[in-house]
Amino acid sequence: MPPAGVIERYRSFLPVGPATPVVTLSEGSTPLIPARRLAAALNCELRIFLKYEGMNPTGSFKDRGMTMALSKAAEAGARAVVCASTGNTAASAAAYAARAGMRAVVLLPAGSVALGKVSQALAYGARVLAVEGNFDHALQLVRDLCDRFPITLVNSINPFRIEGQKTGAFEIVDELGRAPDFHFIPVGNAGNITAYWRGYREYDALKTSGLPRMMGWQAEGAAPIVLGRPVADPHTLATAIKIGNPASWAGAVAARDESGGHIGAVSDDEIVEAYKMLSRLEGVFCEPASAASVAGVVRSLRDGLFRENPRAVVVCVLTGHGLKDPERAIKNCDAIPTVPAALEAVASAAGVS
Amino acid sequence: MPPAGVIERYRSFLPVGPATPVVTLSEGSTPLIPARRLAAALNCELRIFLKYEGMNPTGSFKDRGMTMALSKAAEAGARAVVCASTGNTAASAAAYAARAGMRAVVLLPAGSVALGKVSQALAYGARVLAVEGNFDHALQLVRDLCDRFPITLVNSINPFRIEGQKTGAFEIVDELGRAPDFHFIPVGNAGNITAYWRGYREYDALKTSGLPRMMGWQAEGAAPIVLGRPVADPHTLATAIKIGNPASWAGAVAARDESGGHIGAVSDDEIVEAYKMLSRLEGVFCEPASAASVAGVVRSLRDGLFRENPRAVVVCVLTGHGLKDPERAIKNCDAIPTVPAALEAVASAAGVS
Repeated sequence: MPPAGVIERYRSFLPVGPATPVVTLSEGSTPLIPARRLAAALNCELRIFLKYEGMNPTGSFKDRGMTMALSKAAEAGARAVVCASTGNTAASAAAYAARAGMRAVVLLPAGSVALGKVSQALAYGARVLAVEGNFDHALQLVRDLCDRFPITLVNSINPFRIEGQKTGAFEIVDELGRAPDFHFIPVGNAGNITAYWRGYREYDALKTSGLPRMMGWQAEGAAPIVLGRPVADPHTLATAIKIGNPASWAGAVAARDESGGHIGAVSDDEIVEAYKMLSRLEGVFCEPASAASVAGVVRSLRDGLFRENPRAVVVCVLTGHGLKDPERAIKNCDAIPTVPAALEAVASAAGVS
Repeated sequence: MPPAGVIERYRSFLPVGPATPVVTLSEGSTPLIPARRLAAALNCELRIFLKYEGMNPTGSFKDRGMTMALSKAAEAGARAVVCASTGNTAASAAAYAARAGMRAVVLLPAGSVALGKVSQALAYGARVLAVEGNFDHALQLVRDLCDRFPITLVNSINPFRIEGQKTGAFEIVDELGRAPDFHFIPVGNAGNITAYWRGYREYDALKTSGLPRMMGWQAEGAAPIVLGRPVADPHTLATAIKIGNPASWAGAVAARDESGGHIGAVSDDEIVEAYKMLSRLEGVFCEPASAASVAGVVRSLRDGLFRENPRAVVVCVLTGHGLKDPERAIKNCDAIPTVPAALEAVASAAGVS
């Protein structure tokens, strides 16, 4: 029987009570997929597992946090939630708001509204507004709205989101029987690396399940934590981690330093290469940002990280489904060859003759 | 712990043995989501549940059958699989072939290759070939390839696919504790209604779990079973059920007649209306074809089907994720209003003031 969602599954670890209405779409309990063909292709003996968060209801890990954020908003009597996001956060907020019978409001700077990115939030019935001004204006309006009306802010500063997201770590430990040796994860706004580290520590305190080294990966064009300063104009094709000034910067640095880990940067080419390997070797289709974790494994192999533990247990979080970014999938496609309707020609073109 | 996929979960009901290599991506165990807000909007007391098959690894129910088809192909020593499909079947076949280390070949008539539809299969590394000729030529070549080479056909005539798909019925009964009173399901190629009916009967024979009335729904422009004759030029925006001559026609008719059910047709407008209700009332985003099942419930309410059992337990299968059809989501979006960066204007436009 599929679990009822992360709040019911991990209730005792979360700030909910008997009076909290649980707003859920059966998020979480995503598979931890062994990636033996990937390891073989990388010519290593690592025991690599893919935590495939694309199998959440809206197609990304954001649902783990949003079930908490919307449940707490409902408990507080909010009638609407608001965020400033074009992507996965807006889609998840809109879905859980619909489920709760609340309105979701998404504010964006007028210049940066791409219909393709925001169409999922619109499908869930979000009220999307293009604000005349820049992103800072939109964010200020979000805060002002929440001060004046019974509206809850569900941007990443909402503390309940990280609480929900830490359940990903619980699931990994429950499945492996202990923490992995290394945890590779894409880093954008840095809430997720913060959440996983919190989850591993809470479980270890209770169950002595061990702690992984936290290995965070930014895109080279959007690597503020690696550079040690905000990036004014971040750029990368991995849109879900195109962040110049992460909200959870301090949490990411703490996860890295407390765990003896590392936060590094990979190029867009390395990200695309890993993205292709995941779908073509393992049948796991993720959005480009997700592949930063696997690109990090490739880089770390080259840098000799696993020399002393070549059979280490390595978990890579894949944060979103490949269907989230259909344009990238099409861009990566080779042209489709046309062949005559003759058996030999087809067999030859198919590579099976 | 997330189950290991439908073969491990229901091994004793499936034609696999200890020597069958299990090719899995942790498909199945999809949620059965109660839809109370939908029922309220329809002004009824039905206990409606949504079997959300969009949460399978490639985003559709096809994965349940493909884990079986690829596992049996691997057992038989196949080096490749082939199908003629632009959509969900091709994507699923390509993913499971990648996972198995086999080649997936997709043959299409040259005139009908839409890159957007086939991009997911390409992402998984399928070899897609545009054949000079029509769909019949492509199908004949598929058969000839399988006769001549160690290639397995994974089109819907592959019998293992229906075996895998019947596990959806097992999951519903396992979760509800008995079969529902009514099972609403979209009907295109008719393999899925055939599979669910088989699953319900097998479970009932063993567990006396009861049998639902099978309620299948075609699109009005592609309703061969309703009309009683093939449709030469099927048309509907619900592309996943745009089929003029279903492969499992006889199975669908048997499911209908043996269960005291019905196969009807709903218009594209009714499908779109149900599609919108699902995402906006329940936070469940499906592809348009999926919504035919819910459009069928709306139609059946109007026709008085539930008059004698107004609190009936009704399961609607939602066959694929809304992210499968991003163009439809964008087409349904209203224009995004631009508002001044002023609190009152934003609150008013957001509908929260």
